[in-house]
Amino acid sequence: MPTLRVEMFAGRTLDQKRALARELTDATVRALGVPASAVEVLFYDIEKHDWAVAGTLCSDPPASPPQQA
Amino acid sequence: MPTLRVEMFAGRTLDQKRALARELTDATVRALGVPASAVEVLFYDIEKHDWAVAGTLCSDPPASPPQQA
Amino acid sequence: MPTLRVEMFAGRTLDQKRALARELTDATVRALGVPASAVEVLFYDIEKHDWAVAGTLCSDPPASPPQQA
Amino acid sequence: MPTLRVEMFAGRTLDQKRALARELTDATVRALGVPASAVEVLFYDIEKHDWAVAGTLCSDPPASPPQQA
Amino acid sequence: MPTLRVEMFAGRTLDQKRALARELTDATVRALGVPASAVEVLFYDIEKHDWAVAGTLCSDPPASPPQQA
Amino acid sequence: MPTLRVEMFAGRTLDQKRALARELTDATVRALGVPASAVEVLFYDIEKHDWAVAGTLCSDPPASPPQQA
Repeated sequence: MPTLRVEMFAGRTLDQKRALARELTDATVRALGVPASAVEVLFYDIEKHDWAVAGTLCSDPPASPPQQA
Repeated sequence: MPTLRVEMFAGRTLDQKRALARELTDATVRALGVPASAVEVLFYDIEKHDWAVAGTLCSDPPASPPQQA
Repeated sequence: MPTLRVEMFAGRTLDQKRALARELTDATVRALGVPASAVEVLFYDIEKHDWAVAGTLCSDPPASPPQQA
Repeated sequence: MPTLRVEMFAGRTLDQKRALARELTDATVRALGVPASAVEVLFYDIEKHDWAVAGTLCSDPPASPPQQA
Repeated sequence: MPTLRVEMFAGRTLDQKRALARELTDATVRALGVPASAVEVLFYDIEKHDWAVAGTLCSDPPASPPQQA
Repeated sequence: MPTLRVEMFAGRTLDQKRALARELTDATVRALGVPASAVEVLFYDIEKHDWAVAGTLCSDPPASPPQQA
């Protein structure tokens, strides 16, 4: 603890996850003053067909404005 | 926001998810008066062997009454 | 199951939650063909100072465009 | 309800999940006095490259002390 | 890790939570063979007006069969 | 999206949350190359009596090593 859960589109590389885990942990250490060893980060890869905005799956052509994540 | 997370048994088709995303978004718009563009829906497919009721995995023959979802 | 979790700004009335629970359940029944008795809905009220968009707490004046939820 | 969500490293066998579902349900029944039929347990298998401690993915050699889960 | 999240009706005493944390941790140790120090448990107290079954808030008189949790 | 959920001990000030939201968002922008406007962060304050490690509530004297978060 603190524990961070990150939901994002599937497709990030291992290097991106590695960098993100490091960056988020450092950010938490700076903002809260906790030791890095106390910070856990979990990634959830969400397929675009499992994420909808404005009622439209992100895998479908947007009826809504384009999404980026 | 609002953000909805839906846990359900794996196996729904894309069309079912498409309909569910649309229906849930419309329902939220009607009940809360928010614009559709503010509503996000995320689907989590849960395998029956990863969901237990009454201590029995839903992939196992029910010691408990049959489950439907 | 299915189980729905709804994160939204705090401040909705009991009547709004009652309507939303009903609407979301009906939507799930229509889209998935499950019985209403199988559907659970949980509400999480999130204070605006606990929800940030674009790095700005929703309780702060927007550096980002105004949010509605 | 109660509903339990378990995040753990991927790789547990079906028998381990079966035992864990049973054990967690029994524990909840004992501690809270609810009927077993009211208890749901959901398992989330998290790959080691999706779980970081101290800013290091659990699939990478530990800069932090070794993790076990 | 493993990390367990428990959603249950608000109103449990500290002693019940203390017992439940202990029981769930012991159950996880037995079923998975992890050390107790690796197990975290988080409790989420959910008000009955924030939990709906069959489209009815659990704080309302049941249109559905009575719920217990 | 991406959406980050942060569970941490209750008691952080608004300024700490403000800083954390900013830092986490910046970290995500740097690591993933998404625009800041796409990043949401939600904070969950967890009381120490609702978080257990090694089977002991964090509000109780540690049978386990002291926790910091």
